[in-house]
Amino acid sequence: MEADLVHLRESVYEANMMLKRSGLTVLTWGNVSGIDRDSGLIGIKPSGIPYEQMRPEDIVLVDLDCHVKHGLLRPSSDTPIHAALYRQFGAIGGIAHTHSRYATSFAQACLEIPCLGTTHADVFQGPVPVTRALRAAEVQADYEQATGTAIVERMSMLDPSTCPGILVRQHGPFTWGPSAGAAVANSIALEEIAAMAATALALKADTPLLSQHVAAKHFSRRHGSTAYYGQPGRQ
Amino acid sequence: MEADLVHLRESVYEANMMLKRSGLTVLTWGNVSGIDRDSGLIGIKPSGIPYEQMRPEDIVLVDLDCHVKHGLLRPSSDTPIHAALYRQFGAIGGIAHTHSRYATSFAQACLEIPCLGTTHADVFQGPVPVTRALRAAEVQADYEQATGTAIVERMSMLDPSTCPGILVRQHGPFTWGPSAGAAVANSIALEEIAAMAATALALKADTPLLSQHVAAKHFSRRHGSTAYYGQPGRQ
Amino acid sequence: MEADLVHLRESVYEANMMLKRSGLTVLTWGNVSGIDRDSGLIGIKPSGIPYEQMRPEDIVLVDLDCHVKHGLLRPSSDTPIHAALYRQFGAIGGIAHTHSRYATSFAQACLEIPCLGTTHADVFQGPVPVTRALRAAEVQADYEQATGTAIVERMSMLDPSTCPGILVRQHGPFTWGPSAGAAVANSIALEEIAAMAATALALKADTPLLSQHVAAKHFSRRHGSTAYYGQPGRQ
Amino acid sequence: MEADLVHLRESVYEANMMLKRSGLTVLTWGNVSGIDRDSGLIGIKPSGIPYEQMRPEDIVLVDLDCHVKHGLLRPSSDTPIHAALYRQFGAIGGIAHTHSRYATSFAQACLEIPCLGTTHADVFQGPVPVTRALRAAEVQADYEQATGTAIVERMSMLDPSTCPGILVRQHGPFTWGPSAGAAVANSIALEEIAAMAATALALKADTPLLSQHVAAKHFSRRHGSTAYYGQPGRQ
Repeated sequence: MEADLVHLRESVYEANMMLKRSGLTVLTWGNVSGIDRDSGLIGIKPSGIPYEQMRPEDIVLVDLDCHVKHGLLRPSSDTPIHAALYRQFGAIGGIAHTHSRYATSFAQACLEIPCLGTTHADVFQGPVPVTRALRAAEVQADYEQATGTAIVERMSMLDPSTCPGILVRQHGPFTWGPSAGAAVANSIALEEIAAMAATALALKADTPLLSQHVAAKHFSRRHGSTAYYGQPGRQ
Repeated sequence: MEADLVHLRESVYEANMMLKRSGLTVLTWGNVSGIDRDSGLIGIKPSGIPYEQMRPEDIVLVDLDCHVKHGLLRPSSDTPIHAALYRQFGAIGGIAHTHSRYATSFAQACLEIPCLGTTHADVFQGPVPVTRALRAAEVQADYEQATGTAIVERMSMLDPSTCPGILVRQHGPFTWGPSAGAAVANSIALEEIAAMAATALALKADTPLLSQHVAAKHFSRRHGSTAYYGQPGRQ
Repeated sequence: MEADLVHLRESVYEANMMLKRSGLTVLTWGNVSGIDRDSGLIGIKPSGIPYEQMRPEDIVLVDLDCHVKHGLLRPSSDTPIHAALYRQFGAIGGIAHTHSRYATSFAQACLEIPCLGTTHADVFQGPVPVTRALRAAEVQADYEQATGTAIVERMSMLDPSTCPGILVRQHGPFTWGPSAGAAVANSIALEEIAAMAATALALKADTPLLSQHVAAKHFSRRHGSTAYYGQPGRQ
Repeated sequence: MEADLVHLRESVYEANMMLKRSGLTVLTWGNVSGIDRDSGLIGIKPSGIPYEQMRPEDIVLVDLDCHVKHGLLRPSSDTPIHAALYRQFGAIGGIAHTHSRYATSFAQACLEIPCLGTTHADVFQGPVPVTRALRAAEVQADYEQATGTAIVERMSMLDPSTCPGILVRQHGPFTWGPSAGAAVANSIALEEIAAMAATALALKADTPLLSQHVAAKHFSRRHGSTAYYGQPGRQ
């Protein structure tokens, strides 16, 4: 196997283990993928394998049409959702999916997460969106494909670099980023954002939105050409 | 002792330690059992022994009438509840009982857990049911037996393979599965399901139920002949 | 030093470290004591010492009037509260004090914890009581002594063996038991009981009380001559 | 480098790692600084560096005008806020900033934290204040400087030794103390205080304030010339 694909497997393996260590996921829940754009191959967690037992060589490599190219295990059943996002958004390099407690609770309540503070604005420019409900025919025809389509549809007016995640209605969050590890970091951030929003709204039902000038400032501190958070030349 | 019984003890011991590691239980609370259907013997946690001090040989083996067959310790005081379930449901191989925080809170509120999302639908086809209240005479005559009867009664129209757990009213959850380890996994899942339902309901009191077509799809992704979650030939 | 006092220090040290490991306490908060009834000496945590730095020989030994008999450090500033309880209740052997999150929240809300389920009834026969407010003159004269008096006063119609803890109004919980370790176990149980009560009440404001016949049954499963929880001859 | 500056770096490094271990912060969030008053140099966490990768020599030393004096990395983007506080409050030796869940939720709800119990009164004499909103022009001109000014402004009638922290509106908490480690300890305490206040208010919306005589007593048990908490001669 080429060095790039070995590297893809290792980075996707590490990102999955980072997700496990984060405490966002129990049992075999959740999955992380990454893509090597040169080969067009996606590395993704195998379905239903305990994190503790997984090894880098268990990461399944599939193409953008979800055909397995390398690997002895079946890929995550959510693979078509990941592939749909990689096909649509050429700039993303990794995707994470969890059932983390607070983000999933917002998804179950069918509520987007409003931007109530700078923690949110550091990561998302605007609310965290929610996908529409799927029709029975869509679920029956190809459920995962329909989920991917619903995400792409909801993101149609949004930029995946300023909106690095979404809540799938009554399901849970997907996040993305330039790499598999960055996608997991966005899952961790999203869970904190969701927990704080839930807690703030419980304290005061009419918690105000963060003003646009502070929100824009915070996002631009960390992202884009005006960023001054972090170290130059490091992501 | 026969190899099968040694294996039973080890698997029940491991499942109890998995429960402890999960953080669902404090002190000596909770208990897990498994059954060897050939011998008709149940292996169960000894009563009141700290998890840290327990060894595989401390797992008590009792028959379906709760008579101790092997072991120097007294079995869990909840043993008659486990036995009642094993007698009634021939397909289950393990049972777990916890006082996990959110599932127990629903039990205390005497509320079944509605199916609000796919995390729930992955595990339960329908709401998590609650048993009826016990009458004073039942409590005085044989409390644990009456609890087992109330569970069996509430499950009478339900299938233990699609409803792998229940909330005992004002007490806490029991879960089951094909093995002791699977029963513990269902306890872990149930606690997450309960926590997310409590949080979603706090965010929006009229959180809608998951539509039946999505619920059925999710359950069937993981269970039965149409399953495509996980690896072929592994549970 | 006599062997009994060495043993007292070790058991009190171990109980304090058990409290720390439980996660109920942060920084230097909380304290645990034990008593050797033969010598009338109380072993208690030194004031303001980080748990990580404490050694068994740092446990301060004081008499029932709070005079230091052995030890180079100042005892916990809450020592007069512990001593008041040991003087009043001859059957208790250990006391634990925490600011654990949920129990303290009930204390701050000036609400007793109602018995909403069997987890509660396993430990407390009846609600967890709250002390009265202290008058300004009491606080100025001898604050810790007044706190001890308020606890003794509130317990006047209660039995410390069936009510093994109390909430000091707007302060936090004290628990007790036959040993320092048992007192800590009751603190751990109380925190779970408080968390479940808070969660159940949030789910349903009119969550019903556990019926008296189930409550009495559960307590008697674990305590007194009718107990059948645990192993014979072990606490 | 002088011994004092080596010591500053080590103590600031240790305080940052204490923050990480406390669980108050995820990813690269949060930052802790300390000051050496003799040299007028502040040691502060480098921007965007994972705690796990940070070494003592990565701590950036800046002067009170935020010019980097020692260090190869860019200091925290919040450095101007820290510097503003050190310039204003000559008695503080360390500052910690987190996005801890409950304290940040109060900041997002734009609510000060009322003093509802002795846990709060042990640390803060009075409510935990909230800064005012920043105007768009302030955000555009110099956001971090404006944040520092807003804190100083809100603290104008308060004493930083009796009010060792503040909530920056819609952002999160800053705490301080005589050393970097003491500032982190105050962050840990503040998060518990916030969590208990949120829980108490959810249990009872009209939870009463702690009476002034108990609040004053508790603060004075720990702080100032009347303190009798802790060991003489230790902080």
